[in-house]
Amino acid sequence: MFFKFLPKDFNFFDLFEKQAGYVVEAAGYFKELISRGAIDEPSLEKMHKIEHEGDEVAHKILEQLDKTFITPFDREDIHALAKELDDVTDMIYTILSRLKTYKITKVDGNLMEFASIIEESARGVAHAVGGLRNTKNTKSVSDACIEINRLENIGNSMRDRMLGELFEKEKDPIAIIKWKDIYQYAETVLDICEDVAHIVRSILVKQA
Amino acid sequence: MFFKFLPKDFNFFDLFEKQAGYVVEAAGYFKELISRGAIDEPSLEKMHKIEHEGDEVAHKILEQLDKTFITPFDREDIHALAKELDDVTDMIYTILSRLKTYKITKVDGNLMEFASIIEESARGVAHAVGGLRNTKNTKSVSDACIEINRLENIGNSMRDRMLGELFEKEKDPIAIIKWKDIYQYAETVLDICEDVAHIVRSILVKQA
Amino acid sequence: MFFKFLPKDFNFFDLFEKQAGYVVEAAGYFKELISRGAIDEPSLEKMHKIEHEGDEVAHKILEQLDKTFITPFDREDIHALAKELDDVTDMIYTILSRLKTYKITKVDGNLMEFASIIEESARGVAHAVGGLRNTKNTKSVSDACIEINRLENIGNSMRDRMLGELFEKEKDPIAIIKWKDIYQYAETVLDICEDVAHIVRSILVKQA
Repeated sequence: MFFKFLPKDFNFFDLFEKQAGYVVEAAGYFKELISRGAIDEPSLEKMHKIEHEGDEVAHKILEQLDKTFITPFDREDIHALAKELDDVTDMIYTILSRLKTYKITKVDGNLMEFASIIEESARGVAHAVGGLRNTKNTKSVSDACIEINRLENIGNSMRDRMLGELFEKEKDPIAIIKWKDIYQYAETVLDICEDVAHIVRSILVKQA
Repeated sequence: MFFKFLPKDFNFFDLFEKQAGYVVEAAGYFKELISRGAIDEPSLEKMHKIEHEGDEVAHKILEQLDKTFITPFDREDIHALAKELDDVTDMIYTILSRLKTYKITKVDGNLMEFASIIEESARGVAHAVGGLRNTKNTKSVSDACIEINRLENIGNSMRDRMLGELFEKEKDPIAIIKWKDIYQYAETVLDICEDVAHIVRSILVKQA
Repeated sequence: MFFKFLPKDFNFFDLFEKQAGYVVEAAGYFKELISRGAIDEPSLEKMHKIEHEGDEVAHKILEQLDKTFITPFDREDIHALAKELDDVTDMIYTILSRLKTYKITKVDGNLMEFASIIEESARGVAHAVGGLRNTKNTKSVSDACIEINRLENIGNSMRDRMLGELFEKEKDPIAIIKWKDIYQYAETVLDICEDVAHIVRSILVKQA
C-alpha cells in the first residue's frame, strides 16, 4: 500500500462517535417499538434507515482506513470496531424483521426486558467508543466496558431463564421455534456489544 | 519468520482462480441437482469430491503463504480469501447433506430459486477473484462485487419471504424445522459470497 | 504501541499449557457427568468454575500480549489461540447449561459417544499446544493436529447420523428442537478444536 494522505486523527474518532450514535438510536427506537408492542411496516422501514445510515459511516471508516497510513490505533482494531458496531444495529434490525416474518404481533414482557438491557448496553458502547478520543478518559471508558460485560452476563441468564420458561409453558412447537429464535437474537445483540467492549479494552491497554 | 523463497506472484492468482473455479463448479452442480429434484448418494459423493478438491487448493494457498515473504496483496487478505472461498463450497455441500439427513426427497421451487441466485453469485465470485490478476480490471471487478452484494440482498428478502410462507402454510412443526434450516443455509452461501466480495473490494482499494 | 518490557518467551508457553489444561479438565469432567447421566446444579457450577479459570488464563495471555513487543510466534496467532481455547471450554459449558435449561435428565448414548470424542480431541489439543514450546516436537505436534481433524470428521458424521435418527424416530417436535441443539453444540466443540489445530499447524509451518 502506498502512502496516500494523512487525515487528522480525530476524523476516525468523529466517525466512530457517529457510528456509535446510530447504535444508540437503533436501541432506543427498538425499545420504543417493543414497549408500544406493535411492529408495522413504517417502523421497520425507519429502523432499516437507521441501520443503513450506520452502515454508511462504517464504509467511510473502512475507506479512510484503506487510504491512511498512520492511524490513531491499530488498523485491525479500527476495522474490527467498525464491523462490530455495524453488527449491533444489523442484529437489532434482524429481530424486528423476524418478528414481522413470524407474524408476532403481541410482544411479551421478556422481550421488553431484553430491550431495556440492550438500550443500556448501547449507551455503554457509545460511552466507551466516545471516550477513546481522550486518553484521560481511561477510567470511565474502562468502567463502561465492565458495565457492558455485566449486561451481557445478565442477558445470558435472561435468555436461559426465558428458554426454560418457554419450553416449560409453551405447548405449541411452532411458537417455541419462533420465540427461541427471538430470544437468541436478542442475546446476540448483547454478545456483539461485548465484542465492542473487548476491542475498546484492548485499545486502552495498548495505549497505556 | 525467515525468508524462504520468492515464487512468482501470479502463482497466487492461478491458485485463487482455480479455487474460484471449484466454487462455480459446486454451485452449477448444486443447481443441476436441485432442478433434477433428486439427491442420491452418488451425487452427494460427487459434490463432496468437488468440495475436497477446492479444499486442497486452499491448503496450497495457505502453505505457499506461510513460506512466502512477498505477496501480491496483504497476507491477511490472502488468508481470508482462501478461507471464504472454501466456506462457499463447504456450505453448498452442507445443504445437500442436510437434504439427505432430513430425507427431503421432493425439492421445492423455493430452493430452485436459491440455486439460481447462488449460481449467479458464484460466477460473480469467479469474475471478481479472477480479475484481481490485472489491475486494469478494476471497473469490472468492482462491478462483480456490486452484483454479488445485490444478489445477497435478494437472497435475504427471499429467505424472509420463504420463512414467512413456511410459517403461514406449513402446519407440521418438524417440516418447519427442516426447511427453516435449509433456507437459512442457502442464504448463508450468499452471505459468504458477499464476504468474498468485501475482501476483493478491500484489495482493490489498497491497490488504487 | 510502545515497547514495554520483554518477558521471557516461555511465559506464553506456560500460560498456553495451563489454558489447554483447563480444556482437558472441562472435557474430562463433561464425560464424567454424561456417563453419570445426571446434571445437577453443583456439577454445573463446578464446570462454570473450570471455564472461568480458563478464561482468566486467556485474559492473562492477552494482557501480556498487549504489553509485549517480541513474541515467540505471530501476535495474531497468539490472540487467536487464546480465544479458541477459551471457546472450547465455553462451548462445553454451554452444552451442560442447555441440558439443564431443556430439563433433559436422561442423557442418551449418543451424547456419551460425543463426550468420548470430545475428550480425545481435548487431549489432542493439549498435546499440540504443549508441544509448541519445543521445535523438536514438530512431528508429534503435527500428528496431534491430524488426529484432531480426524476426530472432527468423525463428529461430523456422528451428528449427521444422530440428526437422521432423531428426525426418523422422534415424533415429538419439541424433543427434536432440544436434541438438535445439543448435537449441534457437541459437534461445534470439535469444530473449535479443529480451529485450534489449524492455528497450531500454521505456527509450525512458519517456524519450519
